[in-house]
Amino acid sequence: MKSKTQYLTFNTPTRRAFINITPKVRKIVEESEIKEGLCLVNAMHITASVFINDDERGLHSDYEDWLEKIAPHEPTDQYEHNQTGEDNADAHLKRQIMGREVVVAITTGRLDFGPWEQIFYGEFDGQRTKKVLVKVIGEKERSQSK
Amino acid sequence: MKSKTQYLTFNTPTRRAFINITPKVRKIVEESEIKEGLCLVNAMHITASVFINDDERGLHSDYEDWLEKIAPHEPTDQYEHNQTGEDNADAHLKRQIMGREVVVAITTGRLDFGPWEQIFYGEFDGQRTKKVLVKVIGEKERSQSK
Amino acid sequence: MKSKTQYLTFNTPTRRAFINITPKVRKIVEESEIKEGLCLVNAMHITASVFINDDERGLHSDYEDWLEKIAPHEPTDQYEHNQTGEDNADAHLKRQIMGREVVVAITTGRLDFGPWEQIFYGEFDGQRTKKVLVKVIGEKERSQSK
Repeated sequence: MKSKTQYLTFNTPTRRAFINITPKVRKIVEESEIKEGLCLVNAMHITASVFINDDERGLHSDYEDWLEKIAPHEPTDQYEHNQTGEDNADAHLKRQIMGREVVVAITTGRLDFGPWEQIFYGEFDGQRTKKVLVKVIGEKERSQSK
Repeated sequence: MKSKTQYLTFNTPTRRAFINITPKVRKIVEESEIKEGLCLVNAMHITASVFINDDERGLHSDYEDWLEKIAPHEPTDQYEHNQTGEDNADAHLKRQIMGREVVVAITTGRLDFGPWEQIFYGEFDGQRTKKVLVKVIGEKERSQSK
Repeated sequence: MKSKTQYLTFNTPTRRAFINITPKVRKIVEESEIKEGLCLVNAMHITASVFINDDERGLHSDYEDWLEKIAPHEPTDQYEHNQTGEDNADAHLKRQIMGREVVVAITTGRLDFGPWEQIFYGEFDGQRTKKVLVKVIGEKERSQSK
């Protein structure tokens, strides 16, 4: 079994953002030379998400509105967590809806994706440096079971 | 490390549906002959889910009602995404709640499940052909660490 | 590829609880002697979650309040599932928000975590014995791809 691990760094100018990281993940998979295996992509911070969905601006706006309705940022004093001096309790909630990580199949050296799948970094408490972990494990030679 | 990859195809007669795919996944695991490893099962489309829960008709009805309350289909013009000509923005939201994928342990050649765990395909925008990916990776011989 | 599988058992005195299981998972990873790989941690029961977030009491209280608002326990007769004699339909819903499993990278023999990541068992229908599966797969020697 071979593996390759890399870290992506983000510092979004806005509090919330969705960033398509598919090209960066694809490059890491290619560099790994792994042909069959799995690729884990996860947020290393707990007010951010990694998820797979559509690269469509209207949908991202819908996500933003929907998450704000389910887990509103304000009033910030509605959350006990914010008594610690933080104002990001809502971001910890939003991240649970959108998820921490994705696991993607690597088949014949490529992300084994459906027609519209794209990987996003979802930031819910930005304006500071945060990381995403990409780990590819598998084999460089196909040793297909049957 | 060995691997086996297969794709399941669905075309549900209704817009929304929950389908128990455990027997199909189990068959793929058995055919892989992999004894120790992981099995990834993911929707390849972004308005569908793969999740693990109970095979109980009342619960599925509860999920349907609950998801419709959290992310209603209508009015369709409440979503920016639907300005693209689609009417499935709600399906992209519902899928985030229910999840894209599951990763299941393979132990002694079998899905290592608790007593009630069953794998479901969750369709939120059906009536067309969609796929689920099943990838098993691992070893045919047990090489248990300690 | 090496692997190690262990099961953790919980029986919470309260219906709902969040328990930090990071030290237990870390111990299993250390005992596996696996240096590069993946660690799957999943609830084996369908009214419980495994998730990664902050070990902060106020946040856990916020999760409790938020989940109760999104998927209230009472009135129990609002759920079809509870006609089976159960009263835990809400727990099946809450678990979908918080997730079934996490997959964590193992790098140089350790959980490859960001500064605040901690693994939690989330119980939504406790007061009985339930299990969590921990499976580590990977290699004892680093065979880093490039």
